[in-house]
Amino acid sequence: MERGKLIVVSAPSGCGKGTILGEVLKDPKFYFSVSCTTRQPREGEVDGVNYRFITKERFEELIAEGAFLEHAEYVGNYYGTLLAPIEENLAQGKDVLLEIEVKGAEQIRALRPDASLIFIVPPSLETLRERLINRGTEEMDVIEKRVAKAEQEITYRERYDYCLVNDKLEDAVADFLAIVRAIELKVEK
Amino acid sequence: MERGKLIVVSAPSGCGKGTILGEVLKDPKFYFSVSCTTRQPREGEVDGVNYRFITKERFEELIAEGAFLEHAEYVGNYYGTLLAPIEENLAQGKDVLLEIEVKGAEQIRALRPDASLIFIVPPSLETLRERLINRGTEEMDVIEKRVAKAEQEITYRERYDYCLVNDKLEDAVADFLAIVRAIELKVEK
Repeated sequence: MERGKLIVVSAPSGCGKGTILGEVLKDPKFYFSVSCTTRQPREGEVDGVNYRFITKERFEELIAEGAFLEHAEYVGNYYGTLLAPIEENLAQGKDVLLEIEVKGAEQIRALRPDASLIFIVPPSLETLRERLINRGTEEMDVIEKRVAKAEQEITYRERYDYCLVNDKLEDAVADFLAIVRAIELKVEK
Repeated sequence: MERGKLIVVSAPSGCGKGTILGEVLKDPKFYFSVSCTTRQPREGEVDGVNYRFITKERFEELIAEGAFLEHAEYVGNYYGTLLAPIEENLAQGKDVLLEIEVKGAEQIRALRPDASLIFIVPPSLETLRERLINRGTEEMDVIEKRVAKAEQEITYRERYDYCLVNDKLEDAVADFLAIVRAIELKVEK
């Protein structure tokens, strides 16, 4: 069986990355690598689906065991990607999707030359601000911080292989799937 | 306006490249670069559509004028790609498709780092032989030469960015369009 592809996805928060991935993951050819985090679940988030929510102590044990492909601290919490489930699924021919913030993606780039990196951006920062307001899960000062952070993160675009604009969901999903198919058809050097 | 992408397509003869491109070119976002050749038209081939059929003398004048992006000799005939129409269409935002044999593609790779290269292969050499027989335009000895040439050309796969297998036409067209979309969304380094 042909080995699957390792695909990293990053996007500033509020870019609709979760919605796009929700659509994409309806295809069973994908395995979504669920990250571990020490942050608190948001409303509606399910352990083992959105993240594996673990304690700081457990996270630090796993670091010590070398169980993470990458890990990073972000806004005071740990986030990390376990290596074993990724390798198992690649070997089974599944395309493995990793959703990782920009610094983690940089680590993957260095560690895994076989990985392809996709960046998702909003049509504009104004659109991003509106989406975060409409999501209604955060106060205005937090939203402004996220928009400022997004503005900075968008400058990381150059470090990715592909970049798609999430304007209309349907188009963004089609673009995402086109990129994945092209990655599958890429000639390995 | 965003500049279009330069896309090179090669395939051993009989791989169905022409049929795939015929489908793909229904989308007006593409400009197909019609090559010049000194070979005789095959039955059904139209001057200015399949090739610009020109004399050896005219071809050599154009070489002297530096009008070609690349040119090559193949089975005793010249084939070449004029530069001016490519630049005009890229500037107008069109994706420019160049259909070029493997040696010409190598020249483009060296001359144009902005080009993406797609290779189309048959599911097997046996399938290729059958297709050439069914096309009915060539004698068996010519077909065997083409199959042998294809076997050798397939080893050029490694020099391309993407490789797709033309098994079912519909899938091959979808794969081709997915690759093109991904090329459009590629981050320029």
